[in-house]
Amino acid sequence: MVIIGIAGASASGKSLLAKHVIEGFNNGDVVMMSEDSYYKDQRNLSKEQRNLTNYDHPDAMDHELMANHLLALSAGQTIEQPLYSFYEHLRESKTITMKPCKVLIVEGILLFTQERLRSLLDLRIFMDVPLDICLIRRLERDVNERGRDLQSVLTQYQATVRPGFFNHVSPSREYADLIVPEGGENPAAIELLKARVAQMLTQA
Amino acid sequence: MVIIGIAGASASGKSLLAKHVIEGFNNGDVVMMSEDSYYKDQRNLSKEQRNLTNYDHPDAMDHELMANHLLALSAGQTIEQPLYSFYEHLRESKTITMKPCKVLIVEGILLFTQERLRSLLDLRIFMDVPLDICLIRRLERDVNERGRDLQSVLTQYQATVRPGFFNHVSPSREYADLIVPEGGENPAAIELLKARVAQMLTQA
Repeated sequence: MVIIGIAGASASGKSLLAKHVIEGFNNGDVVMMSEDSYYKDQRNLSKEQRNLTNYDHPDAMDHELMANHLLALSAGQTIEQPLYSFYEHLRESKTITMKPCKVLIVEGILLFTQERLRSLLDLRIFMDVPLDICLIRRLERDVNERGRDLQSVLTQYQATVRPGFFNHVSPSREYADLIVPEGGENPAAIELLKARVAQMLTQA
Repeated sequence: MVIIGIAGASASGKSLLAKHVIEGFNNGDVVMMSEDSYYKDQRNLSKEQRNLTNYDHPDAMDHELMANHLLALSAGQTIEQPLYSFYEHLRESKTITMKPCKVLIVEGILLFTQERLRSLLDLRIFMDVPLDICLIRRLERDVNERGRDLQSVLTQYQATVRPGFFNHVSPSREYADLIVPEGGENPAAIELLKARVAQMLTQA
């Protein structure tokens, strides 16, 4: 199994890029995995405590489980991927059964901050999108689509999202093999990655 | 004919990347062209005047001829590419006959500064290499290999190369579809571009 990692700022178009690359390949050959699914369970914390967690810090993620899952998939094993409730800030009791595939595209803001994860990625891509453009996407998603309160989104952005970007995400750009500007709709980047994935599939 | 453009700082590995991408394809299918060949003739200037030319400024280039040549090649015509003497700062009387190909990789520091050239490029790649690394490569090439005087290389670097980068090259990064870190030996970027070029050849 080949593993492609896409990192970059929150709302920079990582999962959109992954989806576009996957389009058109046989179902099950090329699969996406999100770092978001691997937030720590926090079942031992109260709802108030969970609301205080910094979700833009590597400590919020169960990167060890994620790396173990990548290794298991690479070894041809099926995994039970956690399902995370962003509303409850808890891991749900249900899991998602995930079979091995030929090319796995993993996306997440903090992927490149972890040495163990980096070493498992065969190709590392970093999204280079101005932060105001990411903020526009975040507002459209969280306020317009999900109905969240504008001020709470802006407060969270300034409290954790923006500092998390400068403290953790941006320095990890150093580990990228390739940098994608514009975001997930960049047609040249989509075509390049599709061509490379198609080649990986013939070599698999 | 598909045209791929590679821009970025001087000594950032543009032509090296192009050479690596071309390796392994059939002779004549994928060809490189350098913006360097299109420096203005300057036959009307004295040697002293030619030494004062700023070779890191778009005005030093005959971008119009270059664009006309790209259009001619695209139309299936053979061109006579100028041969430039970097020692005399003159266009030589000889030319190089260049036949149309399937994929042309054009490399040069100022390619993306010109709207007409940009519009002729099907894929625009920008090299993202720290300037001190580029300077090391320049010193190794110009002082160690070509035997130029260290101080004259450093003086020229500070007088025109560095300002030219910040005034012209760096702002043109805005037009890139894809950004390549590390330089011309970036294996992931080479493989991605080779895969895309192979696909372009089957579609040609």
